Amino acid sequence: MIETGVESEQIQRVFRDKLVNAGHLIPSGVKGVYGHSGTFESVVQHLDVYVTKVGADQNAEVIRFPPILSRAAYERTDHLETMPHLLGSIHSFSGEEPEYLELVRMHEAHEDWSRSLAQTDLVLAPAACYPLYPTASGTLPPGGRVVDLMAFAFRHEPSDDPARMQMFRQREYVRLGTQEQALAHRDEWLRRAEKLLESIGLDVTRVVANDPFFGRGGRVMKATQREQELKYELVVPITSRETPTAVASSNYHLDHFGLAFDICTANGAVAHSACIGFGLERIALALFSAHGMDPALWPNDVRSVLELS
Amino acid sequence: MIETGVESEQIQRVFRDKLVNAGHLIPSGVKGVYGHSGTFESVVQHLDVYVTKVGADQNAEVIRFPPILSRAAYERTDHLETMPHLLGSIHSFSGEEPEYLELVRMHEAHEDWSRSLAQTDLVLAPAACYPLYPTASGTLPPGGRVVDLMAFAFRHEPSDDPARMQMFRQREYVRLGTQEQALAHRDEWLRRAEKLLESIGLDVTRVVANDPFFGRGGRVMKATQREQELKYELVVPITSRETPTAVASSNYHLDHFGLAFDICTANGAVAHSACIGFGLERIALALFSAHGMDPALWPNDVRSVLELS
Repeated sequence: MIETGVESEQIQRVFRDKLVNAGHLIPSGVKGVYGHSGTFESVVQHLDVYVTKVGADQNAEVIRFPPILSRAAYERTDHLETMPHLLGSIHSFSGEEPEYLELVRMHEAHEDWSRSLAQTDLVLAPAACYPLYPTASGTLPPGGRVVDLMAFAFRHEPSDDPARMQMFRQREYVRLGTQEQALAHRDEWLRRAEKLLESIGLDVTRVVANDPFFGRGGRVMKATQREQELKYELVVPITSRETPTAVASSNYHLDHFGLAFDICTANGAVAHSACIGFGLERIALALFSAHGMDPALWPNDVRSVLELS
Repeated sequence: MIETGVESEQIQRVFRDKLVNAGHLIPSGVKGVYGHSGTFESVVQHLDVYVTKVGADQNAEVIRFPPILSRAAYERTDHLETMPHLLGSIHSFSGEEPEYLELVRMHEAHEDWSRSLAQTDLVLAPAACYPLYPTASGTLPPGGRVVDLMAFAFRHEPSDDPARMQMFRQREYVRLGTQEQALAHRDEWLRRAEKLLESIGLDVTRVVANDPFFGRGGRVMKATQREQELKYELVVPITSRETPTAVASSNYHLDHFGLAFDICTANGAVAHSACIGFGLERIALALFSAHGMDPALWPNDVRSVLELS
């Protein structure tokens, strides 16, 4: 097992270096943080447009959030209890002249100046849909809502795996409504997402999955999430056929966000929610892995579907 | 003076409420942080495309960074000394089970749990071009570089002014090269940016400006920056004709970033740099202010230039 882990890490670094040599990833000096080439970015943009096309009949409300979330709203979710190791909390300096002079002194002395900072009212969004729920408090329209989102998500998990970026874009369709509506959305979008990924030449498998909950309590939560089949991932080979990578996932949240943010259906019941999320950078990486470093040389049908030609 | 300030804040809140009522801004509960409607986002996207068109002859390298920056690179700039009050430092939880239990206890007891977090290797990018310079260390190609960037920038300055968002997109063209190249880029792009803004019906004025440097020392730096005319802003009326808002700016950095990141010209001299930055959300807000809440009713020439029709 350990040997396989080491091998797979080596293969991940080989693929990362290939992307760096091709100019698609520009190392930042921090693991899992890269600049992207114009070509890489163009693939991401075309994927975004393709997802829109596949979801055109949904007449979804389009909303775009910056990649930050009110800390008060964040604290109404259970993220701090369940995944604090992935959190990005935003801290800043709010002192006056004496504290400022101490900050500068500490920095110049290579001391830990971070203690001079204070937590702001903001955290980085752990997923594209987190900023939505606090804005949905109240009663949903009859029929509920379907919302089209795209935003950067942050997860503090430095890694040499190019597919594990610390900040990446999620394109989502979120359903807010009854249990039936949430489940129907989840099921319909898992099918659509599978077809979407197959149509661009990716070898996709649907698996029951779990979130990376923290610690001892997290082990129980993982098992429960799997038992209830609340999370599915669509995995495709990026660096390995044996351990393929999740490039899209669906979450059925039960009434979790409905309860946290007082969201009700038109009938007054607590709203359920479900989302499908596409990891745009990961799908792009899967395409580069499957079809090569130059999109101009990708198979014609893939280029055509993505309107690259 | 105080009365004028109060009045202008009222006018800012009136404009913000108008945008909220039209659905273009969705309040997040934190000042200066909003979701955007699909229509607002579409204006931003069309502005981005228009800037690309205006810069097409530059044959710029396109690079896209996520809105984060290596903290080690950040510390090589002088931002911590000059504008620490605007910083967004990213902190996360990296403890084990005992620290985790203490974190959860503190959160449940409404104590300050932020002290359980530790600074990560990342800060939020204070401007779209900050992540570029650390990747440019070494010798520039003959002729230097022109780089096309677009990224979210973070500035911790909560405000009721809808034009003062805490996280917003900057579209930039950065020049790395000799002093002459940097200055020529600055001058050429100030002219182009003025024309660009005029072509979409905005009443633009070029002014010498300064960065919001912190504290007592900052006052001297502001004066020096103005004396040397290192920063120009293009201002347009958004909520007030008397105090128009900067929607684009140019910065000539002298050899500041060249020295900080060991960037040399092909001749071995320390590189100079200059950038032009377009504040995409601010330009969109200026358009909504000048032409009304419904882009379908904007003047035909503006719609045509932005390819909205």
